[in-house]
Amino acid sequence: RINSARLWDSLEEMALIGPGVAGGCNRQTLTDADSEGRHLFKRWCEAAGMTMGVDTMGNMFATRAGTDPDALPVYMGSHLDTQPTGGKYDGVLGVLGALEVVRTMNDMGVRTRRPIVVTNWTNEEGARFAPAMLASGVFAGIHTEEYAKGRRDLEGKVFGEELARIGWVGDEKVGARKMHAMLELHIEQGPILEAEGKTIGVVTHGQGLWWLEITLTGKDAHTGSTPMNMRVNAGLGMARITERVHQIAMSHQPNAVGAVGQVKVFPNSRNVIPGTVVFTVDIRSPEQGKLDAMKAEVIRAAHAVAKELGLGCEIEDVGHFDPVTFDPGLVEVVRGAAERLGYSHMDIVSGAGHDACWINRVAPTVMIMCPCVDGLSHNEAEAISPEWAAAGTDVLLHAALEVAEV
Amino acid sequence: RINSARLWDSLEEMALIGPGVAGGCNRQTLTDADSEGRHLFKRWCEAAGMTMGVDTMGNMFATRAGTDPDALPVYMGSHLDTQPTGGKYDGVLGVLGALEVVRTMNDMGVRTRRPIVVTNWTNEEGARFAPAMLASGVFAGIHTEEYAKGRRDLEGKVFGEELARIGWVGDEKVGARKMHAMLELHIEQGPILEAEGKTIGVVTHGQGLWWLEITLTGKDAHTGSTPMNMRVNAGLGMARITERVHQIAMSHQPNAVGAVGQVKVFPNSRNVIPGTVVFTVDIRSPEQGKLDAMKAEVIRAAHAVAKELGLGCEIEDVGHFDPVTFDPGLVEVVRGAAERLGYSHMDIVSGAGHDACWINRVAPTVMIMCPCVDGLSHNEAEAISPEWAAAGTDVLLHAALEVAEV
Ligand SMILES: NC(=O)NCCC(=O)O
Ligand SMILES: NC(=O)NCCC(=O)O
Repeated sequence: RINSARLWDSLEEMALIGPGVAGGCNRQTLTDADSEGRHLFKRWCEAAGMTMGVDTMGNMFATRAGTDPDALPVYMGSHLDTQPTGGKYDGVLGVLGALEVVRTMNDMGVRTRRPIVVTNWTNEEGARFAPAMLASGVFAGIHTEEYAKGRRDLEGKVFGEELARIGWVGDEKVGARKMHAMLELHIEQGPILEAEGKTIGVVTHGQGLWWLEITLTGKDAHTGSTPMNMRVNAGLGMARITERVHQIAMSHQPNAVGAVGQVKVFPNSRNVIPGTVVFTVDIRSPEQGKLDAMKAEVIRAAHAVAKELGLGCEIEDVGHFDPVTFDPGLVEVVRGAAERLGYSHMDIVSGAGHDACWINRVAPTVMIMCPCVDGLSHNEAEAISPEWAAAGTDVLLHAALEVAEV
Repeated sequence: RINSARLWDSLEEMALIGPGVAGGCNRQTLTDADSEGRHLFKRWCEAAGMTMGVDTMGNMFATRAGTDPDALPVYMGSHLDTQPTGGKYDGVLGVLGALEVVRTMNDMGVRTRRPIVVTNWTNEEGARFAPAMLASGVFAGIHTEEYAKGRRDLEGKVFGEELARIGWVGDEKVGARKMHAMLELHIEQGPILEAEGKTIGVVTHGQGLWWLEITLTGKDAHTGSTPMNMRVNAGLGMARITERVHQIAMSHQPNAVGAVGQVKVFPNSRNVIPGTVVFTVDIRSPEQGKLDAMKAEVIRAAHAVAKELGLGCEIEDVGHFDPVTFDPGLVEVVRGAAERLGYSHMDIVSGAGHDACWINRVAPTVMIMCPCVDGLSHNEAEAISPEWAAAGTDVLLHAALEVAEV
């Protein structure tokens, strides 16, 4: 079993970097806080006897040597970046849990045949730069590095320039590493495990997702002196499409979700009819057919609303992945580890996207989940118990020992 | 007749201060640009032989002496502040048109019995600090100075501190001045005069208004892993209320308008269900009964939507004035001046709020309007012709000569 107190201390110490305003974290990708968190992680990895490699997307790879120099390594990890008002565990548990696995192996003097690599993927959240899981997506060959480096945040800052600014452009070619397997531990971010009273989620599948950014263009005009029939109100269009997104997700129950998360209104003045609104739609389903249908329905609804209000309408894809099926052999390894350790467990579908969803395209991959209180995540109040964290990390340890061949 | 070229030059020169991004202006109240515009206006007034007084709300009063030291003055003016993406004429024409009237009187060597005071009212727009017409409202005894000085902008900056920072806290007590009459020239900001082919609007009434700021509180949560039935989505609530505001205004046609102009979503991240949304409703009517009914309906609808979605709902009044009837005697003066000058004219109701709406409570007041292209205002593309500007200012000159007793 891993050292639960040491794991918890590391989680708490990391959370001090980029603190939030309500007890959580704001350690968004490629900020100064992100850089500081990376330095701490690097120091910890080196103290645990690992050597750090960094690729040109800033992905970090800390290697613990195996006994067989020719064996492909087993990767474990997640991400250290957070939402603007994020929790302390989303992503971080997966990285520091993997580090704790190595620390435990060191304590026990265990050697594995395969090297073990603890990974921190850059910009998993996609909050500052869409899409999410950007750098693991480049690693897996989904995006070009050029596309990723050209992404811009709300202020217009460019991904590549921000990565250079914080000093984390490495020298490794992205995706050059070959993996025997990849294991990602993560908090569930949903309510199911807690509701079912299970400590471990054996993740068999992941939902697919579409992120659409819709720009509606009307005409800024005075709210008082412009008659109702002369208005071209982009704000009203946004409102109608927001409602339609909700209805479309409801009409595909169960196994479908949809919401508008980000809205920018221009000029955003009380007495100006909004001339432009830019907003993002997030729709997901674990079923390919539903995902495709919802996307088509949202696009159709957006154009129909724009037409009825006389608005211009542009729709850009800013993120997408299809539903994921994780490696059945590794799923069995995780289920067996939970069983052996005596933790209650159930199979589960990941509602969120994860770096594992992309890496699954290039290597056998699996995820392990532990519960979080009230299913709350992407909220500073996100909470887990030390026991849940330890249980998930124990399962990760046992799976790693098996896959890396102790 | 006034000097049309000189008026136009002054309008263009003022527009260089706080330029917009698309040919208009961003000279929001109590910014450095506002201060610079005030200095230019003061220099122009002094060059025209006037003396400048400033009150503790930053309202500016440039006096041209009359022949009778005991006669109450005639006030003319409007505002120099603009929307964040505003036009070059909204407010500015009323101030610089009044200055042009004095310059013309100087050219002609005309003396009036009553003094003439050219006025720039602070924060008419209400874009940065709600409510609109804040400082004329204090002058008219509607708001206390303490209330006004405590208003905050989106960044939390305080009105009183910003006024001091830009150096325009005067020494006069607000509202101490007594007026014989007040005349405000303004662009229509609506489409009626142009559509009817009239050069002058004789403003008999003004619409009443309510500004409500609604705060909906739900729960930030992950857009992917939170099931639809566990969401408390403040963004969806905002969307539904935005639609209801539109429907309520439509149900009171004609003579009613309504829209949501400003929306702030928290945390405003693509993959977070909005936990809090703060947005503003603007409803107006020239009929007291409709205005009151619409307000009640919007409040009822907001609470009903909040209830159906499980949201917290707080509604704050951030601006209000009742429908206005301008002084019938002065209306007759304006109509007569337009008639004498041979300008086509019609009676009109102001769709927008104006400083004149508050001053009307403490002195006989009237407004003169000229058309603007496509009725477009609160938009950088706002446009008027030099001929329209000159016609409105000619009517202002003739009305002033009559009311100030040449
Ligand atoms: N795990 C997580 O929240 N990832 C961000 C991408 C997503 O929104 O699913
Ligand atoms: N004239 C004008 O736009 N005033 C601002 C107050 C309002 O929105 O009516």
